[in-house]
Amino acid sequence: MGQDEERRPEACAHRPNLADITADVLARIRSRAPRVHCITNSVAQAYTANMLLAAGAIPSMTIAREEIAAFVSGADALLVNLGTFDAERRTAIDLALGAKGRRRKGQRPWVLDRFYRTLAGARAFRARPAQGRPGGGAAQPARICGARRQRCRGRGAGALCQGPNTIVALTGDTDVVTDGRRTATIANGHALMSLVTAMGCAGSALLCAALAVEADAWRAAVAALVALGVAGEVAALSARGPGSFADAIIDALHNLDRATLRARTRVSA
Amino acid sequence: MGQDEERRPEACAHRPNLADITADVLARIRSRAPRVHCITNSVAQAYTANMLLAAGAIPSMTIAREEIAAFVSGADALLVNLGTFDAERRTAIDLALGAKGRRRKGQRPWVLDRFYRTLAGARAFRARPAQGRPGGGAAQPARICGARRQRCRGRGAGALCQGPNTIVALTGDTDVVTDGRRTATIANGHALMSLVTAMGCAGSALLCAALAVEADAWRAAVAALVALGVAGEVAALSARGPGSFADAIIDALHNLDRATLRARTRVSA
Amino acid sequence: MGQDEERRPEACAHRPNLADITADVLARIRSRAPRVHCITNSVAQAYTANMLLAAGAIPSMTIAREEIAAFVSGADALLVNLGTFDAERRTAIDLALGAKGRRRKGQRPWVLDRFYRTLAGARAFRARPAQGRPGGGAAQPARICGARRQRCRGRGAGALCQGPNTIVALTGDTDVVTDGRRTATIANGHALMSLVTAMGCAGSALLCAALAVEADAWRAAVAALVALGVAGEVAALSARGPGSFADAIIDALHNLDRATLRARTRVSA
Repeated sequence: MGQDEERRPEACAHRPNLADITADVLARIRSRAPRVHCITNSVAQAYTANMLLAAGAIPSMTIAREEIAAFVSGADALLVNLGTFDAERRTAIDLALGAKGRRRKGQRPWVLDRFYRTLAGARAFRARPAQGRPGGGAAQPARICGARRQRCRGRGAGALCQGPNTIVALTGDTDVVTDGRRTATIANGHALMSLVTAMGCAGSALLCAALAVEADAWRAAVAALVALGVAGEVAALSARGPGSFADAIIDALHNLDRATLRARTRVSA
Repeated sequence: MGQDEERRPEACAHRPNLADITADVLARIRSRAPRVHCITNSVAQAYTANMLLAAGAIPSMTIAREEIAAFVSGADALLVNLGTFDAERRTAIDLALGAKGRRRKGQRPWVLDRFYRTLAGARAFRARPAQGRPGGGAAQPARICGARRQRCRGRGAGALCQGPNTIVALTGDTDVVTDGRRTATIANGHALMSLVTAMGCAGSALLCAALAVEADAWRAAVAALVALGVAGEVAALSARGPGSFADAIIDALHNLDRATLRARTRVSA
Repeated sequence: MGQDEERRPEACAHRPNLADITADVLARIRSRAPRVHCITNSVAQAYTANMLLAAGAIPSMTIAREEIAAFVSGADALLVNLGTFDAERRTAIDLALGAKGRRRKGQRPWVLDRFYRTLAGARAFRARPAQGRPGGGAAQPARICGARRQRCRGRGAGALCQGPNTIVALTGDTDVVTDGRRTATIANGHALMSLVTAMGCAGSALLCAALAVEADAWRAAVAALVALGVAGEVAALSARGPGSFADAIIDALHNLDRATLRARTRVSA
């Protein structure tokens, strides 16, 4: 985190209890059931939807050009995942980002999941639409650029923040969340998470759900990654391999409680 | 059910044993292995296929315009799910509904799953293709309009029946099946069913399999919903959350027997 | 196998220990983590990806025309599955097969999964693109035509071999693998495997992973099918139906060890 020139000394002055913040965010997702519209790849759709349902959110998934604007307008958050990137999804993304929201002042958060691991060999092509977007414009006050850490080693996470309201979350063996001012390093999670396809995509959807109920985007992002990481640790206690683990983490997220979060949250912020 | 003017007094004169009817329908699916062609959204495809296989049916899923007519012609029932509704699926639906069947007199049943919950905000667009169809024409003598109940509260289910051979099935906390004459209210099922994506879509596919082996469409629809609901109750006995539940209900449907159906079926007809 | 005129008398002269070969191939997949690019149907994508991850390989799945060549060029093996066959996938297949490889001399193995069961009624259409390919040309020295056995009974497997470097693998109650010279009959597997959608598609992806680490394509194919079959047997020991079985076989493949393979491998070659 030291590379980021926007970092300010007072950033870590008051250290919130991130286990309790995570529990609070989860409780709000469960009680408010935010709607999350997901433009994601066909590999990830079902698992992402089940992850959102387990957390208490309501997923929608259409990318049909005739209806996506209507779905996004009614959503509390939007996920744009670049895991597969065909012409139809590009159109859907353009329509989705242009859709007006029911939320006050266009405050619909959205998450851009760049999924760097998949990008190997195709980076230039995929980088384009993201760069073409205004960096943290008025319509995207709580934008998160989620990215898997594999391709980002050696770059300061803060360098990816393209605007004042943009959060960057990099996932990997440890997760890093920064808004350029505050940086959290999350040591939760389990190795089996990397053996379930769409785990990261589903995690990005969980970020969306958290952003929909928590105005502080940095806290929302930390809460989502802590929740998923702790759920993974709980799941690994009973899983016999990646197949049973994929279901067990859904179960664990559904059942996650404050006591478990207090016992397991490992964040340095 | 009281709102439906087509209802006739003799409708409930003889009350069939719906647990045994369900067991009979399941036994016929298992022995005849009907082929069900599914035009469904990419979120639901895999789970729907697995549900059909667990019941004893044979799924096919292509929506490619070059081959869908051939697949539908060889199928014993057709599912049209409007969960995602893009141009390619619209073309597929048109081709599928126009395909000639191997069954005598074009008696291939089909199910239209309107999936109202997803429709929020995009209802007008999706309503079109369904309304453009002739209501229960000669080619669709056992058509079922499946719909999730959330958006239909306060409307009589019978009002959705658009022809003499159309069944309406509304699912929700309780399921309602009516053909305008007979109405069944099914109290089976479990709350975890609503936390698994594509559960309703897969249930509609199960309706297709039942229609393929039971000429009385109302009985077929009741049997399918009872089977799924009872399987859900059995699954909930061992599941630890929605992740393990999603698999457990597949297991339970595969293993469902007459004794369990007799013990658990809760239908008022 | 008797029908194949290319068969030579010395084919079975030295009988390798196929359990150990399978264990060796699995160990190499786990240590080298080959990248397998999959052009497969949307029903199968997630399960296929999870199967590859469980084996130790790295899946990629895009079919977007703008990036598929880049992905395939970086891949160690390519899967082409004709389970659903729309215009977009046809374009992707053409681009993928034309992509230059990073492997020396264009030695990237690829698997064509023809999936005959799905083909019922649409065979002529799907047969075309495969036949248009040069049979075992220089760029495809380890090509495998995987096919489900249902539609191939009564045809010699060898008749499907279209070139000197082509392997044919037919799966069913027993699996048959032949290169026209050597033929193996594999009696591993479990009936529940046929009740999980995409099991065969995922098996073809496993063939790709094996081909990426084993230059003898026949050995690679036998190893992949033995591994999957033995994993299925192990999974059936704990599964309560096809739902839990689908995850258990992923777990079993992830945990598969040499001792289990030695105890269970049943191949006549």
